[in-house]
Amino acid sequence: MGNSAERSHAVKKLGEMIKDIDFAMMTTVEEDGTLRSRPMSTQQVEFDGDLWFFTRESAPKVEEVENDRRVNLSYASPEDQRYVSVSGTAQVVRDRQKIEELWSPALKAWFPKGLEDPDIALLRVRVEQAEYWDSPSSTMMHILGFIKALATGQSYEPGENEKLDLSKRAGR
Amino acid sequence: MGNSAERSHAVKKLGEMIKDIDFAMMTTVEEDGTLRSRPMSTQQVEFDGDLWFFTRESAPKVEEVENDRRVNLSYASPEDQRYVSVSGTAQVVRDRQKIEELWSPALKAWFPKGLEDPDIALLRVRVEQAEYWDSPSSTMMHILGFIKALATGQSYEPGENEKLDLSKRAGR
Repeated sequence: MGNSAERSHAVKKLGEMIKDIDFAMMTTVEEDGTLRSRPMSTQQVEFDGDLWFFTRESAPKVEEVENDRRVNLSYASPEDQRYVSVSGTAQVVRDRQKIEELWSPALKAWFPKGLEDPDIALLRVRVEQAEYWDSPSSTMMHILGFIKALATGQSYEPGENEKLDLSKRAGR
Repeated sequence: MGNSAERSHAVKKLGEMIKDIDFAMMTTVEEDGTLRSRPMSTQQVEFDGDLWFFTRESAPKVEEVENDRRVNLSYASPEDQRYVSVSGTAQVVRDRQKIEELWSPALKAWFPKGLEDPDIALLRVRVEQAEYWDSPSSTMMHILGFIKALATGQSYEPGENEKLDLSKRAGR
């Protein structure tokens, strides 16, 4: 596969892995180097390599990503033992048109004033690397795999662990 | 409360919040500054301020924490909308006695050779700070709260968000 086909495969795969996990834990680096995370609701638009999150512009995490743009997003679905790590860089976006495009009424829970709220902003995370751990989808399959490993002395393979490299963008 | 009582409250609370979440996503900083995370099984011992994980000594994350000891552990229980962020420093521990103390047969899935495996090691994470987001335990309550926020125009409070400071240790 060429770079472009490879990238489009990676984008599609990552989109599938995270599409039903509403909240990611976003880890940022504080000024003193402390790593902090908090739950963030991923905006459900078709994934094209960027992930979008609504935020308050006054939130501490906005200051943190302006100091150090590197973030990690972890998506966990304990139910089917699916875990995804996304590495990327974040940027605060204040573009009204983009805010309106991504807005949905459910966001009023966090922004009661709606689009009139002057503190409303977006975080765009440009995905550079992603990995996932994907066990068989049913818990039973998982337990079977686990027990089989115990019985045979073979090392347990908790499903696939594929690395996705999204940094090979067209025109970069 | 004095520092010691405060710390013991924080330790107890954090222990409760994470005790039924088997896998944490551990975020580390790579040499080039990239943040990566991977699922790690928390050893179920009574939490006293340190969290313990089995690892292969040859795993890349071991090298990463030896370069930069700061880690974040995120615990997610989407089912009851419970999310925990733990900030701390990690250290590789090769102490045989501790390895034997924490060992359980289920770990054979990852270490088929058991305690004889020369690559077996521990990561100890000294917890310095933790935060959690704790929605009402039932999804229904959560949806009710959400709808109420929409109806009243009040900002939605997704449960408690308490910061736990565990750095005030006795004798430090």
